[in-house]
Amino acid sequence: MELSSTQTHLLINTGMSVLGFLFLLNIIPKFRDMFVAANLYGIDMSKPGRVKIPEAQGVVCGAVFLIIMFLFIPFPFYKHLAVNHSTKFPHNEYIEYIAALLSICCMIFLGFADDVLNLKWRHKLWLPTMASLPLLMVYFVNFDSTIIIVPLPLRSYLGHDVNLGVLYYVYMGMLAVFCTNAINILAGINGLECGQAVIIALSVLLYNFLEMSGPYHQAHVFSAYFIIPFLAVSLALLYYNWYPSQVFVGDTFCYFSGMTFAVVAILGHFSKTMLLFFIPQVINFVYSVPQLFRMVPCPRHRLPSYDPKTDKLKMSMAVMKSSNLNPLGQGIIWVMRTLGVLHVEEEKEEKMTCNNMTLINLILKFTGPLHERTLCVILMIIQM
Amino acid sequence: MELSSTQTHLLINTGMSVLGFLFLLNIIPKFRDMFVAANLYGIDMSKPGRVKIPEAQGVVCGAVFLIIMFLFIPFPFYKHLAVNHSTKFPHNEYIEYIAALLSICCMIFLGFADDVLNLKWRHKLWLPTMASLPLLMVYFVNFDSTIIIVPLPLRSYLGHDVNLGVLYYVYMGMLAVFCTNAINILAGINGLECGQAVIIALSVLLYNFLEMSGPYHQAHVFSAYFIIPFLAVSLALLYYNWYPSQVFVGDTFCYFSGMTFAVVAILGHFSKTMLLFFIPQVINFVYSVPQLFRMVPCPRHRLPSYDPKTDKLKMSMAVMKSSNLNPLGQGIIWVMRTLGVLHVEEEKEEKMTCNNMTLINLILKFTGPLHERTLCVILMIIQM
Repeated sequence: MELSSTQTHLLINTGMSVLGFLFLLNIIPKFRDMFVAANLYGIDMSKPGRVKIPEAQGVVCGAVFLIIMFLFIPFPFYKHLAVNHSTKFPHNEYIEYIAALLSICCMIFLGFADDVLNLKWRHKLWLPTMASLPLLMVYFVNFDSTIIIVPLPLRSYLGHDVNLGVLYYVYMGMLAVFCTNAINILAGINGLECGQAVIIALSVLLYNFLEMSGPYHQAHVFSAYFIIPFLAVSLALLYYNWYPSQVFVGDTFCYFSGMTFAVVAILGHFSKTMLLFFIPQVINFVYSVPQLFRMVPCPRHRLPSYDPKTDKLKMSMAVMKSSNLNPLGQGIIWVMRTLGVLHVEEEKEEKMTCNNMTLINLILKFTGPLHERTLCVILMIIQM
Repeated sequence: MELSSTQTHLLINTGMSVLGFLFLLNIIPKFRDMFVAANLYGIDMSKPGRVKIPEAQGVVCGAVFLIIMFLFIPFPFYKHLAVNHSTKFPHNEYIEYIAALLSICCMIFLGFADDVLNLKWRHKLWLPTMASLPLLMVYFVNFDSTIIIVPLPLRSYLGHDVNLGVLYYVYMGMLAVFCTNAINILAGINGLECGQAVIIALSVLLYNFLEMSGPYHQAHVFSAYFIIPFLAVSLALLYYNWYPSQVFVGDTFCYFSGMTFAVVAILGHFSKTMLLFFIPQVINFVYSVPQLFRMVPCPRHRLPSYDPKTDKLKMSMAVMKSSNLNPLGQGIIWVMRTLGVLHVEEEKEEKMTCNNMTLINLILKFTGPLHERTLCVILMIIQM
């Protein structure tokens, strides 16, 4: 009986998501001129022409996602309302639902503000932390379980489980910041941001369905309520963002998707499993660290460079003077070069070029120049 | 004891609001160039020069407001957490708090999107309704009191009280739409949007403090938690928006303030009292109806026109052909003219001019041309 009503809700949720998907397919082209008129457009640097392509379309997605979620509210809670309200009403679940939406809504807002205003780095780190506060508060109230099971190899040192206490909250807050930025830095070619989000969402959904028969039934149903509509709006966006892109997703979408994943991971108690789905992003992040933290010079754009003759993308390079490098930077480049993960060209007059440290460039190093769509497909496969 | 802890929380809230106020005074000028670079600026039509003034500064206010509210979360709920969580925790209040923030956050986001993209009217009506859904759901769960006390003159017909049922929810949903748009249409001169919001906020706060000793103690404390930070951020904005304006507040601020008032009115159970604080806006709305619903021609801008010679504002006029007016429009103009609330000039060749139907123009009709600051002060006094 319980399972059956859950199934009904999941079906309603899926139905609403499909409607949202069709609605988005219909409205995204209509918003085109509005965005271009508002100066929200980009030029595709990997295409011959210089067409104005509307940016920040993730905001349309995000708004439709919020509308679906708002309209869905009554269904999972209706049964309780109809019977006898305020005594039996599942306040806990409702708080989780609302707090999750609050965090997501904040991030969509922040992402859009970033697209419009080009915020500074310090804002980008502070605001996601703020946005995850209500969520952590709910976690504290509803569970406050900060005990983690120690992985097998470490058990002889740490025992079977460890109570991380306040550190666990710091970890969850950082998860939100990480998820929102991880998708944002593995980006730059048509369809990539959106494609990786779709694949992660599919993985999470599959995981949720597998775990629904387990002890954390409710948590995984909750996660599915969020992931299904998210998948629907992302697919609609991917349709227009796939090579050759008619729209760009903007930071809005990266933030929106990152926060959605963080939210379901935290409230669904699978924050460690979620990191597994983010392995390509983690690799990209680790590989990028020397440039992100300026141990090695970092140009403004690191996306691969376009060759109009072959219509293919090749590695983009960072140019530096080896005399300007500090010992740390020199060491890093030596290690990476020795490991064979960095392409370095040295010239006589102390000038040195190496490829920009992103996963995209790393793939191009091994494969040679690729067509943009092929490259995106390879990255999707890795993600899977 | 209970009152004492409430007082402590109100003091903490006030302290955080003061910090937010100082923070805003500091950062608003710093964001200036960022907004102008993002094409978010307006030209002041009532000034001789044509300086670019940054628009949509309400978004900075809104963000600071949200940060204050997020950081304030632990305080009113800490006591319960420290003693014994999850059993005694006041889920009801926490849900109200989070749902209210969700609605406000949605409106700030919508307002900002409106400023950037110039949304259409139909979006502006639909989205506030969506944004108030979580709030109404909370009202339903926590109170579901849809009984209203009938005013004295009508009691012989309707009895002492009437249960409005679902109509009451429609009414509350419409209150949200009304509040958000009411401030938006009484606007157009320096300092007015912000000034009226500050005066309404002060009135609400006074009312809250008066009622705090009454039976609805908790509801009014709750309202004060929201209104004090709101007052702080509005005052900081007013400082820069007062004549001569260095910044414009944008639709963002109108939506943000309108939703904040709607939220505290609904959850504080004084939605009817709130309408009393909106009397000038109601008058302005009623007076505007013929133009807003196109019974009478309506120009794009209805703000008073500026006379550079005298540095004063005078009525702005709408020009129409009397032969083009339908009977309804003619009737309305005749009635308003007879009542002495419309200035009409008729010329020979069937051309007719009358002042635009806004409260600002109505005042200028009675007083004659006024300086912009004087006009704003008069409107503030009326509001009080």
